[in-house]
Amino acid sequence: MSEWPTSIQIIEVGPRDGLQNQSKSVPTETKIKLINALSETGLHCIEASAFVHPSWVPQLADADEVFAGINKNENVLYTALVPNERGWNRALTAGVDEIALLTAASETFCLQNTNTSIEGTIQRIRPIVEDAISCDVGVRGYISCVIECPYEGETNLQTVREITQQMLDMGIKNIAFGETMGVAVPTDIRRMFDALDGVLSPEDSILHLHDTRGTALACASEAMHCGVRKFDASCGGLGGCPYAPGAAGNIATEDLVFFAKQRGIETGIDLDALVAASRIIEEALDSPLKSRTYRALQDSHTRPSS
Amino acid sequence: MSEWPTSIQIIEVGPRDGLQNQSKSVPTETKIKLINALSETGLHCIEASAFVHPSWVPQLADADEVFAGINKNENVLYTALVPNERGWNRALTAGVDEIALLTAASETFCLQNTNTSIEGTIQRIRPIVEDAISCDVGVRGYISCVIECPYEGETNLQTVREITQQMLDMGIKNIAFGETMGVAVPTDIRRMFDALDGVLSPEDSILHLHDTRGTALACASEAMHCGVRKFDASCGGLGGCPYAPGAAGNIATEDLVFFAKQRGIETGIDLDALVAASRIIEEALDSPLKSRTYRALQDSHTRPSS
Repeated sequence: MSEWPTSIQIIEVGPRDGLQNQSKSVPTETKIKLINALSETGLHCIEASAFVHPSWVPQLADADEVFAGINKNENVLYTALVPNERGWNRALTAGVDEIALLTAASETFCLQNTNTSIEGTIQRIRPIVEDAISCDVGVRGYISCVIECPYEGETNLQTVREITQQMLDMGIKNIAFGETMGVAVPTDIRRMFDALDGVLSPEDSILHLHDTRGTALACASEAMHCGVRKFDASCGGLGGCPYAPGAAGNIATEDLVFFAKQRGIETGIDLDALVAASRIIEEALDSPLKSRTYRALQDSHTRPSS
Repeated sequence: MSEWPTSIQIIEVGPRDGLQNQSKSVPTETKIKLINALSETGLHCIEASAFVHPSWVPQLADADEVFAGINKNENVLYTALVPNERGWNRALTAGVDEIALLTAASETFCLQNTNTSIEGTIQRIRPIVEDAISCDVGVRGYISCVIECPYEGETNLQTVREITQQMLDMGIKNIAFGETMGVAVPTDIRRMFDALDGVLSPEDSILHLHDTRGTALACASEAMHCGVRKFDASCGGLGGCPYAPGAAGNIATEDLVFFAKQRGIETGIDLDALVAASRIIEEALDSPLKSRTYRALQDSHTRPSS
């Protein structure tokens, strides 16, 4: 077992992965206000939107306006998800610092979400990566379904290993491993990183957790033991599913920051400022955010029982 | 580090610790229906109510009627919280299998909640324990605020150690350590059990967690590593605070059962039956339960994102 880290880095994905699943439409100016507020919390990286076809994710159809409207903080890296060449061109025009490219360790998931095979997604992102590198734009790769797939069940970790190697070979240095289903327990996380042995170290990996069944912080804790230092998280725990009211989304940034703080692990993030940023989106969504820590900090009358 | 357990035991405290904090009044017949449903899930122990003065906890004023109304399953131990001699007499008349007696590792918390000092609570419960043992009624001791107190801040673990020794000396074999504030991270849990070294082993302890800041499963996971095999939990994550809408309560039984199941740890509990039991109380409260796993299982349309 590795030592506990002295610091971790959190990548805020709420404005993208969180908002893409909201059934309530959020005005562009609210998104801009949210991202501006998040930019002042101490976060170093914010995934601000996705340059996807509006019919695919109507919630993020305003990606260009969002990027044009935000006050860029020079200490923050602004990322956007890009599904294809067209999205990449829009992202480049919008002046993103980094693009995120997606595949999944499941043939069926790729087919359902990207309309091609795993190999098809790899072929699709390869020229974009080359372009981005030549344009000095950062690249992060997402591998979804690293533990389980909604269509295929348990993931073959050899597939995760192979996709990781392919991404590294393309020159992608930042790879986020997506526990898409929110079903993992700590041993699953350790098994996954064990399967990457010799390909990519936990220290160089990003873990992307969903808190669908309440296990996300337990998995993050185990991942820190394994050596992971970079985590995606979503302010207020934004995300979930529009068809399942109340379902939890990504691991909440507040929960992860609180957890780290109590453990003496530095995140560089001001929890009060983060809660204030999340309140902007809570008010816009008119629905309570799911982050436990956010909720606990909303009311000073919280009375403990036994 | 101990081995992972092959099984854990869950004590369901929802009908007591969960319901005592609800602002909405729950009809006695609904409580009876809930407890009867919980009794058929495979749970071995249910804290069904508290024999407290109705002006103190009006939500549980019907403890006598609840105990008179439930269909006792012979495989289930039915417990009730008892704050004093009068409560003990009511519990004895009601035919409880076990009583739970409360103190806290904080002078101010004891004063605020029991109107006496720590020593005062110990003196108050001592004759009740003697009586209960002589009547062949089981006894469990609760020590609240084992990590932090809302009034005094960080808990002195020497106090936890001393109270534990006093409870053991009285003949209390089951002691539940209450992380009342829901602020603990895994290292806090390990430190607490380390402080009990030579007094009580983790294997013989019960851990009572609140999920106020989303850390409960991470703490439960670490506790299992430490050797803990018995956990209090609340169906649907019932609990929280009537003054803080949305605030989380006890660690959710569903989350703990799901976590254990995924880890290959036996609980003896049928998750579907548990979710069905929780639905009874959700309908009565007319407010969404907080358990992540419960929520995830409510809707089969749950669509994963990335």
